[in-house]
Amino acid sequence: MTQPDRWMLPEGIAEILPADAKRIETLRRRLLDLYHNWGYDLIIPPMVEFTDSLLIGMGRDIDLSTFKVTDQLSGRTLGIRADITPQAARIDAHSFPRSGANRLCYAGQVLHTRPRTALGSRAPIQIGAELYGVDSLQADIEVISLMLESLLLAGVEQIHLDLGHVAIYRSLAAAAGLDAEQQGELFRLLQSKASADIQSWVADNVGETRTASWLCALPGLAGGNDCLERAQELFADAPLALRDALADLRQVADALALRYPAVELFFDLSEVRGYDYETGLVFAAYTPGYGQALANGGRYNGIGAVFGRERAATGFSTDLVSLNTLGREAAAEPGAIFAPAADGESLWQVVNELRGRGEVVITAMPDCSEREVLERCDRELVQRNGDWVVQPRG
Amino acid sequence: MTQPDRWMLPEGIAEILPADAKRIETLRRRLLDLYHNWGYDLIIPPMVEFTDSLLIGMGRDIDLSTFKVTDQLSGRTLGIRADITPQAARIDAHSFPRSGANRLCYAGQVLHTRPRTALGSRAPIQIGAELYGVDSLQADIEVISLMLESLLLAGVEQIHLDLGHVAIYRSLAAAAGLDAEQQGELFRLLQSKASADIQSWVADNVGETRTASWLCALPGLAGGNDCLERAQELFADAPLALRDALADLRQVADALALRYPAVELFFDLSEVRGYDYETGLVFAAYTPGYGQALANGGRYNGIGAVFGRERAATGFSTDLVSLNTLGREAAAEPGAIFAPAADGESLWQVVNELRGRGEVVITAMPDCSEREVLERCDRELVQRNGDWVVQPRG
Repeated sequence: MTQPDRWMLPEGIAEILPADAKRIETLRRRLLDLYHNWGYDLIIPPMVEFTDSLLIGMGRDIDLSTFKVTDQLSGRTLGIRADITPQAARIDAHSFPRSGANRLCYAGQVLHTRPRTALGSRAPIQIGAELYGVDSLQADIEVISLMLESLLLAGVEQIHLDLGHVAIYRSLAAAAGLDAEQQGELFRLLQSKASADIQSWVADNVGETRTASWLCALPGLAGGNDCLERAQELFADAPLALRDALADLRQVADALALRYPAVELFFDLSEVRGYDYETGLVFAAYTPGYGQALANGGRYNGIGAVFGRERAATGFSTDLVSLNTLGREAAAEPGAIFAPAADGESLWQVVNELRGRGEVVITAMPDCSEREVLERCDRELVQRNGDWVVQPRG
Repeated sequence: MTQPDRWMLPEGIAEILPADAKRIETLRRRLLDLYHNWGYDLIIPPMVEFTDSLLIGMGRDIDLSTFKVTDQLSGRTLGIRADITPQAARIDAHSFPRSGANRLCYAGQVLHTRPRTALGSRAPIQIGAELYGVDSLQADIEVISLMLESLLLAGVEQIHLDLGHVAIYRSLAAAAGLDAEQQGELFRLLQSKASADIQSWVADNVGETRTASWLCALPGLAGGNDCLERAQELFADAPLALRDALADLRQVADALALRYPAVELFFDLSEVRGYDYETGLVFAAYTPGYGQALANGGRYNGIGAVFGRERAATGFSTDLVSLNTLGREAAAEPGAIFAPAADGESLWQVVNELRGRGEVVITAMPDCSEREVLERCDRELVQRNGDWVVQPRG
């Protein structure tokens, strides 16, 4: 093994060095404070759990993303979390149940076996908030608002918000009488937005019904307000669940437009992200020049059922590392104070008092280059008439 | 699989619920701010690395403690970190090199395959600081001081500090001509502090030399100032490295006694913890009623050599979760403000302004029990003469 091998990190796994670490830590604190001010309580779930807890009801994608190890103490399989959301759902269902609304937030590293996008990280720092126990659009609006506030606080200047609703595809698939396997096939075609393939698949599997024409129309229904209007016309006789979904999208979009007039709203009616576990409104935020979603979330009612308590649920999350690359530069750091190596009690007291007031004081070390330390120090402690005083470094 | 199975966590793996999570987050911030004020730069190393980087030079204990998985992208073995220190050493040696002193700090979850003590956690939140590039007692004194400041800040009232020096055992083992296997055997006996076994092992392996009597005396050399004085007498003719180690202990103890007169100092000359990689002064802090070390550390020069850059190194770390159980209670949380579900722009602006001023404002949700939310709210927003005002809840 050569030295370069030893210091190489695995692909998609990054270490965060001081300048970025400081910005990420500042952002982490400001976001957690924001969630606190909205009434969201911090939880710290563990890095690993039994896969039986971690993966249940979450679909195949997250299963494949999860590193697994054998627990030497129990012989059972542990998963290293690829997503904190199911942990929060378990905590709401069992460890920290509340009868009404339960607002929880979290921040922590997660790991993916493979990056989710071509250049994506395998070790994002997931931060997010979840609202359990409220099956009302007010909850969706609160959670989307909190997601937008997070991006604004991080300094993201131009936000595009995509809204979708999984009941649209679900209700059409049900009306077409598709079985689970067929639903999965069409789901994958919709994910790839391959219009021609979708039409031929629908012709083969559904025939020439009204529902078939609705299914074929889905990939074209993406855009601004006019898209929602076209959909309301096109789906005027569609199943009730679909029409309800459109009305929900309308109501949420109107509320958000009032609160965030600068955010651009888009509708994507074939959006099937998170189809395995999402149950209602889904949403994702984008910004120009960044190819993937900056933050996303949605409604996932019922996930708690496997833990013995079915609960309404909606939430969002984002990645602190990505957010950090997009936000504005932090203000310049004030300079530090250089303290000599003198080992007296009076210097020790002066140094500690300065540190207690928030100053950065760095003590000299004998027989050691101080070049990099001095570069950060714009002031120094010197003794004058027996007293230690801070003066600018010449 | 039954429901209780699903919500059970693995042995020694805990989730941290809101009351504790808030205290731990507050403590985490205060400690990282403390390290910042001492000139220590935050780094955020990843949860996993190649085992070739993570385990090198760290000895067998940490290898056995490390969960391993196969990386699907490279086919190589990844380790889930059981200790952040080797990651910091790699960063100092390669990713973030400085010519002189390099002060780094970190906080993050680590994982152990087995708990280190009977009731220990397998998922501590390790927080600590490392000082690279300075092979001087001033660096040891700075690092131990920072460890003591951390415990004081966490509210630990009574601190016992144990000091040891691995050169004491090393130099005697070398003088006795013990080979690596023998050193390991005696090391294990010293760890168990089994005096009789040590004497018979030494009689069999070293004979009746002066060095043999010194080795047999080691387990008895633990205690306060008088212990160090006895040792200085007993080892007056011992190898120079041993006498230097005693002088180092004396100097560090004197400096700490001046700075922290309330901390009780103990010496343990048979201390061999971290023998695999520690190279000089080692230290651990205890508090009455807590059976294991609260925080510990030591000098581990040379660890960077495997990354192509041998560096002096000393540092300490502690576990935020344990510290939280020992510290004083946090001050009572101020109450929150309850906001009605009314969906008007004026209410939204008032709510956001209050949140911006640091208030916790929780918005009512329709068709949902508000009992637990109301328990936290001592005030509410009501409309009076068209204006929204905050008033105490009746």
